[in-house]
Amino acid sequence: MDKFLSVNDVQNLDELVKIALEIKANPVAFGDVGKNKMLGLIFFNPSLRTRLSTQRAARHLGMDVMVMNIDKEGWKIETQDGVIMDGDKAEHLKDAAAVISQYCDIIGVRSFPNLQNKEDDYADAVMKDFVKYSHSPIVSLESATRHPLQSLADLVTIRENSDKPKKKVVLTWAPHPRALPQAVPNSFAEWMNAADDVELVITAPEGYDLDPEFAGDATFTNNQDEALKDADFVYAKNWSSTTEYGKVVCKDNSWEVTEEKMALTNNGKFMHCLPIRRNVVASDGVLDSENSLIIAEANNRTFAAAAVLKTILENK
Amino acid sequence: MDKFLSVNDVQNLDELVKIALEIKANPVAFGDVGKNKMLGLIFFNPSLRTRLSTQRAARHLGMDVMVMNIDKEGWKIETQDGVIMDGDKAEHLKDAAAVISQYCDIIGVRSFPNLQNKEDDYADAVMKDFVKYSHSPIVSLESATRHPLQSLADLVTIRENSDKPKKKVVLTWAPHPRALPQAVPNSFAEWMNAADDVELVITAPEGYDLDPEFAGDATFTNNQDEALKDADFVYAKNWSSTTEYGKVVCKDNSWEVTEEKMALTNNGKFMHCLPIRRNVVASDGVLDSENSLIIAEANNRTFAAAAVLKTILENK
Amino acid sequence: MDKFLSVNDVQNLDELVKIALEIKANPVAFGDVGKNKMLGLIFFNPSLRTRLSTQRAARHLGMDVMVMNIDKEGWKIETQDGVIMDGDKAEHLKDAAAVISQYCDIIGVRSFPNLQNKEDDYADAVMKDFVKYSHSPIVSLESATRHPLQSLADLVTIRENSDKPKKKVVLTWAPHPRALPQAVPNSFAEWMNAADDVELVITAPEGYDLDPEFAGDATFTNNQDEALKDADFVYAKNWSSTTEYGKVVCKDNSWEVTEEKMALTNNGKFMHCLPIRRNVVASDGVLDSENSLIIAEANNRTFAAAAVLKTILENK
Repeated sequence: MDKFLSVNDVQNLDELVKIALEIKANPVAFGDVGKNKMLGLIFFNPSLRTRLSTQRAARHLGMDVMVMNIDKEGWKIETQDGVIMDGDKAEHLKDAAAVISQYCDIIGVRSFPNLQNKEDDYADAVMKDFVKYSHSPIVSLESATRHPLQSLADLVTIRENSDKPKKKVVLTWAPHPRALPQAVPNSFAEWMNAADDVELVITAPEGYDLDPEFAGDATFTNNQDEALKDADFVYAKNWSSTTEYGKVVCKDNSWEVTEEKMALTNNGKFMHCLPIRRNVVASDGVLDSENSLIIAEANNRTFAAAAVLKTILENK
Repeated sequence: MDKFLSVNDVQNLDELVKIALEIKANPVAFGDVGKNKMLGLIFFNPSLRTRLSTQRAARHLGMDVMVMNIDKEGWKIETQDGVIMDGDKAEHLKDAAAVISQYCDIIGVRSFPNLQNKEDDYADAVMKDFVKYSHSPIVSLESATRHPLQSLADLVTIRENSDKPKKKVVLTWAPHPRALPQAVPNSFAEWMNAADDVELVITAPEGYDLDPEFAGDATFTNNQDEALKDADFVYAKNWSSTTEYGKVVCKDNSWEVTEEKMALTNNGKFMHCLPIRRNVVASDGVLDSENSLIIAEANNRTFAAAAVLKTILENK
Repeated sequence: MDKFLSVNDVQNLDELVKIALEIKANPVAFGDVGKNKMLGLIFFNPSLRTRLSTQRAARHLGMDVMVMNIDKEGWKIETQDGVIMDGDKAEHLKDAAAVISQYCDIIGVRSFPNLQNKEDDYADAVMKDFVKYSHSPIVSLESATRHPLQSLADLVTIRENSDKPKKKVVLTWAPHPRALPQAVPNSFAEWMNAADDVELVITAPEGYDLDPEFAGDATFTNNQDEALKDADFVYAKNWSSTTEYGKVVCKDNSWEVTEEKMALTNNGKFMHCLPIRRNVVASDGVLDSENSLIIAEANNRTFAAAAVLKTILENK
């Protein structure tokens, strides 16, 4: 694996999940794989889980880490080619990426969308330019369109919690006061579609269909109750509108995942990538129930990241 | 020791001081105790000494460290239970604490008081919720009410500098232009009361009595000169009023610790936790004198923290 | 070497360059030199290359690193002696430096000029006070007047790219929308003058002469074309006026280094310390040409820093 931006970069998905579970069972099993290697984590946007879990993952492999919140610690970065840089941007991404990559054996990059213009966001310029100009492999820590480390951790969590040959997994939109990126649901859909043991159903209000590139052949319905029926896993997440791009179109609180909603499922497990607005996206009752996997899922972020770093370091 | 929030968490105070001095004498003596372990340092408020000394302490034990200034790098955290989180807070403390604790073997937390409402501050909710929801032991890096790593370093410093069986230690209030927390004096008093070789005298203007929970049986007087008489150690610190909670009530500069004041003591040593406002809290003459322990005291922060981490890692 | 603030602190310049190239050839060659040692990096101003390259350099030597952006993570620092600290500054530099130095075996410090008053800036008070009050050696990560780690990396880069016994190196002023420090050109001139294989020519508009302390015996001309003739290396950099101190006096875009300008040279290599404003300081054509060394030069920052740290750690 020479980069990790989406499930398409993964040669063997089942093997990657297996490695994550091996490292979880024995965190120091591959404690020398990253010896004398440096991971750079470059954040254009805030992070808690991703940063800390990826740092820990690197250390499990004996790999060093440098973290830079480039939005706060650095200066503004130019991404357009050929411009006369006499404005407020002090460095071009092509130079920053090339330079940083010389100090690091792998670079993790987080860059969120602006939610102003879908075409711009979906071009995923920051992530792609890092790949283009970096001398070292790039790992997405969440781009404008995808969050693959989260999705891998989600798949690990699903497999840990069910050995059914075909699990019904429901991705349900949920309310939120602010306009959020589509990266997590896009990526989750893409990964679930790639897993042969998952039947994916997506439910969201009108105006919230995911892009077909990500939704693939998943069943889509505006009827949340129907979708939840017999679900083995319920994956809740808010995202902003896709038709009125980046806007909050639906404020219907009946989409909140409550205990009544969970009762429709097949004793389904509840998942969310966190951070979560309690009693907005899902109720305390759901989040604190025995069927809630939110904390276990966050734990698996470490082992997902470790599996990715190991696979890249070994160039497999 | 399964947490370190106050002197009450310490099983054997003399032993803890002894370990700190052992590590000071030979910083790599226990260099494998923390191998493959991770310390997370979570700051809701700024830090210099505490952060750097605790990082160094962990490394002396071979322990890795991740630092997060959650107030600047993260998002706002909800602490109230059961609320509908549709405001400006993106994550609940119960989730954040549980998640972070899975990435760390020990978590250090700093959270200052708001100085608006004594009852709220003295409930020490952030620290207590971290203890409640974390899967790993919690070390206070200064809470709303206490600063135990500072107090341990202070006791180490006092014992290093005097072997008198009973040392007269005077905690004196001193002026300051801003309203400061009561955590350092509370904690200092609590620790001095727990040490069998210290006779504690507290002196402060009216309106600045420490809470009896911390002041204990210490002698209290509004007469600074009387208090300083025959003192072996003078510990200066400003704190905001306890009667008009969180306010600057006294602006009397005669409380500044000067060379004239120090002349009343038994050739007493001067201590302060730093940072210090020079020529406000104490004069340059005092701070730069041979009897000033301020720099040595800051150095002991490293060994105090190392002793605490070692004791927790060994679950003693 | 007991500190690294300027070329004057270097005992043997050729040896230092040689060590940098040795570490570049084999980054783990001296992987135990820094074992159990701690490097503190204290930034009063932002950094990307310096921070990351110096962190990596330390790790190549097995040395640990703590980074503090004291301007963002800490509080305001007083530098004047004897003042009554009742304003907005919470700690005196003399205390901060002494304290931090106890947690670190070497301290790196970055502190930029204010560009308001030349005398104040050129006193380089922050850097000098750190040297005065620190118990550990100080490495400049760029002061108000010099950037020696950059200059060492520049010399390493020049020697790597030419074995001519006397290389013509041209330091040329270039346009920039904002007022920048003089530290990089000062330092570059000082180091080039100290190298016996370099003939330095400096070219800049009127009002931009470098201080004789740094320019030394270098040829100076206001005629950029004449200066560039037969150059082996062109080092472009903007700096603010020296006569109207800290001001942008010249906005003449004809000083931009373009392909036409480079054609005047002896197939000269192009250098810049980065970050660079593309198509303002130099054109895309120059920066992306085969003769551009900007990325390789940034890479050498790691090995320059490692050579300095190694030399200090070994007290040579």
